[in-house]
Amino acid sequence: METLLLNGSDVRENAAMAELVPAIEEAFGAFERGDAQMPAKSYIDLPQYNGDFRSMPAYLATDEWDAAGVKWVNSHPDNPERFDLPTVLGTMIYSDPETALPLAIMDGRELTGLRTGAAAAVATDHLAAADATSLGIVGAGAQSYTQLRAISQVRDIETVVVADRDAARVADFVETFEGEYDVRGGSIAEAAACDVLSTVTPVEEPIVPRDAVGEQTHINAMGADAAGKHELEDEILLDSKLVIDDYEQTTHSGEINVPWSAGTLTDDDIYGSLGEIVVGKKAGRTDDDGLSVFDSTGLAIQDVAAAHVVYEHATENDAGYAFDLLGVA
Amino acid sequence: METLLLNGSDVRENAAMAELVPAIEEAFGAFERGDAQMPAKSYIDLPQYNGDFRSMPAYLATDEWDAAGVKWVNSHPDNPERFDLPTVLGTMIYSDPETALPLAIMDGRELTGLRTGAAAAVATDHLAAADATSLGIVGAGAQSYTQLRAISQVRDIETVVVADRDAARVADFVETFEGEYDVRGGSIAEAAACDVLSTVTPVEEPIVPRDAVGEQTHINAMGADAAGKHELEDEILLDSKLVIDDYEQTTHSGEINVPWSAGTLTDDDIYGSLGEIVVGKKAGRTDDDGLSVFDSTGLAIQDVAAAHVVYEHATENDAGYAFDLLGVA
Repeated sequence: METLLLNGSDVRENAAMAELVPAIEEAFGAFERGDAQMPAKSYIDLPQYNGDFRSMPAYLATDEWDAAGVKWVNSHPDNPERFDLPTVLGTMIYSDPETALPLAIMDGRELTGLRTGAAAAVATDHLAAADATSLGIVGAGAQSYTQLRAISQVRDIETVVVADRDAARVADFVETFEGEYDVRGGSIAEAAACDVLSTVTPVEEPIVPRDAVGEQTHINAMGADAAGKHELEDEILLDSKLVIDDYEQTTHSGEINVPWSAGTLTDDDIYGSLGEIVVGKKAGRTDDDGLSVFDSTGLAIQDVAAAHVVYEHATENDAGYAFDLLGVA
Repeated sequence: METLLLNGSDVRENAAMAELVPAIEEAFGAFERGDAQMPAKSYIDLPQYNGDFRSMPAYLATDEWDAAGVKWVNSHPDNPERFDLPTVLGTMIYSDPETALPLAIMDGRELTGLRTGAAAAVATDHLAAADATSLGIVGAGAQSYTQLRAISQVRDIETVVVADRDAARVADFVETFEGEYDVRGGSIAEAAACDVLSTVTPVEEPIVPRDAVGEQTHINAMGADAAGKHELEDEILLDSKLVIDDYEQTTHSGEINVPWSAGTLTDDDIYGSLGEIVVGKKAGRTDDDGLSVFDSTGLAIQDVAAAHVVYEHATENDAGYAFDLLGVA
């Protein structure tokens, strides 16, 4: 019995956004309906290396498929400068729930970017104006690419404005997409004036001011992933239809964690979860809505759902390297 | 940057018990001294498949090395009959704590057997009579082999008695070891009369009676790994110097969990942890001691320490298959 090994390229090439976005939507639905298991993330903090590890196990069942697995992921901010390595790495073990056979082991870094983009797309689909055509992105790192690719699945994006202090990163982004979109670098204010805005930075002081965002902008706040981080001025959150991926995670490490901890923002300011909207318990955007915000921290069920899509396609496409990891005949 | 893939054979061939036993002892010491991090195991229960998954992350530091990783392991008791697969599988991701690079991914099933044997050896070294020469084993499954191999590192074992209802398994065991030991099949009572006894069965009703065990027998109770399981009559536990690997795990799923939950056995009956003995906070066997019992549930730090030994040797021996999992240059 062999385990399929899939590196970053294999993951990317076998995760068509057209399938990933609906799979992630199904994962949010399964979670809301109680057809998922997602123990809290376990943390190992290593201050001596300025890093941490997180273990993210999950199981979920939809009407058509179920899937189990664990992602082992880290954040080591000194990696780029000291070791010429990415801050975030990751490895995903994807298992057959019925037998526990490890069907695949895949690069978790690429997977994280893809499933994060897909979650933004699910939120955008339910929360952005139907005729949204412009996308602003604050932060031109790896996550910016998957934001555009994913959100394009759910809205007819024509214009893209990307803001980053690093001109080289902006240029790379523009070069990658200039054949497909009207894409340019711009200020944060220009990005924030678009119909949809995704923020993908690790900042601890808000960089998107209230007065920069449009009347009906939908914002995907993707960057905050630890206590103390936030990208949007509190007033944006307080003036918006505020949707979260998970209460525990967002109040502790998501975009809302700082104002929520300070008491500036309370539970009453939270409209609901993306899962509630996906299953129809709560409405997405209505004609009366102005600003909307999706606070995403990233859930283990997204990883498992994304791994399911990648594995199914990789198997069809004979991708990856089959390895007899267990030595079970 | 490549990740070393090690299948079951690679793990076995690169985990010399002579090094594994001291490494596991160091892990217990590090845990006791606070030089380890071991979040609680996360469980995913899948009653629809009569199975479960467990995520076991850990980090530990000794004076010479540190190591981090996660084991993703399961128990699917229907696997043998329905799928011709083992009940317990497992995959271990072994990471560099400083950069989080996944140094190796290895078969966790083989690793589990080896580190479990090594833990029994550490306990036997501290708790069995110095002149112990006979080893009884109840249960002739995969774990019985590593019990003998490991315990032989710490005592000069000459005679081995193995008890199992399955005669074919007994014959396999005897055939494997008959060149090295005076080894034979026997009753549970014959096994229990040896100087050292290891029990490695999944039973829920005790099968080792109080009157079968010798005056100074040291018992490694390895089998119980879930609520409701126990192998030894309560009187054995109550009459012994009772040592546990971890309080939370043993009271919930170890040999003591049934009498502890019933109140038959209380915290006062627990002598201490193996870590306390390893670091010298508490004495191991003394001349006054009669029975002793080590209640082992298996700790994530054991997996990480064992993975460290395997990885170091596999690298030296050019074992395994190097795979660019991340695609990081």
